[in-house]
Amino acid sequence: MEDLMKALIIVAHGSRREASNEEVRQIAHQVAGIAGDEYALVVSGFLELVEPSIPDGIQQCIDAGATEVVVLPYFLSAGRHVVEDVPAEIKLAQDKNPSIRITQAPYLGSAPGIGALLLEQSVSGG
Amino acid sequence: MEDLMKALIIVAHGSRREASNEEVRQIAHQVAGIAGDEYALVVSGFLELVEPSIPDGIQQCIDAGATEVVVLPYFLSAGRHVVEDVPAEIKLAQDKNPSIRITQAPYLGSAPGIGALLLEQSVSGG
Repeated sequence: MEDLMKALIIVAHGSRREASNEEVRQIAHQVAGIAGDEYALVVSGFLELVEPSIPDGIQQCIDAGATEVVVLPYFLSAGRHVVEDVPAEIKLAQDKNPSIRITQAPYLGSAPGIGALLLEQSVSGG
Repeated sequence: MEDLMKALIIVAHGSRREASNEEVRQIAHQVAGIAGDEYALVVSGFLELVEPSIPDGIQQCIDAGATEVVVLPYFLSAGRHVVEDVPAEIKLAQDKNPSIRITQAPYLGSAPGIGALLLEQSVSGG
């Protein structure tokens, strides 16, 4: 019997400003810390400019034993990156690994809880 | 005695893709629906390309009776827009309205709850 192992990859655009990329890595690290049994592995990946690319990040998860990979776009709106570019990158990894289940989660900006998070954030800092 | 009235303005970059701007307006509307007694008014504003600008959005709040305005950057990283451009826009409004308290809340990406929101989002869609 094969063990199931689920990984999450949080994918951002990638920035020339390294501190922005580091913020994404830190958030992946934060999610890893609270993922409990949901994900054995939580990593970050980038659409442009920064390594690992989305296919490379997915491959790292698979090489580490993941049998299922969830790709979550760390984007605020459903622009071309979310609708076309991320799915195209996922397809590259999927074609290379047909036995692995790779799915795209809805992008961050569409999370039902984002309004509550903004309200909380405004009160904490306002 | 003067009544106190607090307004929240959620500011995004502004996009040539109108659906992205509409997403921001919808999120401001969502926050308004759950703001309870915290904010009498929740609106959106844009740094570039889209009306209202941040100073115009702040002015609309003040014209509607706001005595305090919280400006929350709907951005994921602390780049130039969050660190320089939004504060410069706030200063324009503050200089014009010295008696109004106008503050900038921490940007969305720095919200302590963002990891939990991502985890929840990944499970809902993965």
